[in-house]
Amino acid sequence: MRFKAEIDVMPLDALLDPQGKAVTSSMKNIGLDAVEGVRIGRHVRLFVDAGNQAEADKMVDEACKKLLANQIMESYTYSLEEA
Amino acid sequence: MRFKAEIDVMPLDALLDPQGKAVTSSMKNIGLDAVEGVRIGRHVRLFVDAGNQAEADKMVDEACKKLLANQIMESYTYSLEEA
Repeated sequence: MRFKAEIDVMPLDALLDPQGKAVTSSMKNIGLDAVEGVRIGRHVRLFVDAGNQAEADKMVDEACKKLLANQIMESYTYSLEEA
Repeated sequence: MRFKAEIDVMPLDALLDPQGKAVTSSMKNIGLDAVEGVRIGRHVRLFVDAGNQAEADKMVDEACKKLLANQIMESYTYSLEEA
């Protein structure tokens, strides 16, 4: 079975996000004053071949821990569905 | 009212994604052979002050079009909920 994972990797809330801060300022400059608290991370889409959902889940979690997210500075969440 | 938007900005399917390709290769190197088709984009979280959901939706869409996504190379999707 083939599963699709949609993964979000975001900077931890406790850490500054200079890129997000710059974008928040830029929003004001283009007239979108109501936008605030922008934070920017990565979105990763991938596919996994696995026997069942639990197995796929395990692989995606391992991929996040080992490669996609730096857990010192980032947190990750993902959703998994049959593709 | 305050709304939270979760925005995904991804490279268009028709375009190469060298970063995703590199990560797909790295997955094989760490033993995750079942992972394939990795594509990497940005995830943006932001808050909007707006009178109602429709107004917030309009602002988020404008933010995506004007600042967050380059529509020549990227597509965006978002979800919006009261924060």
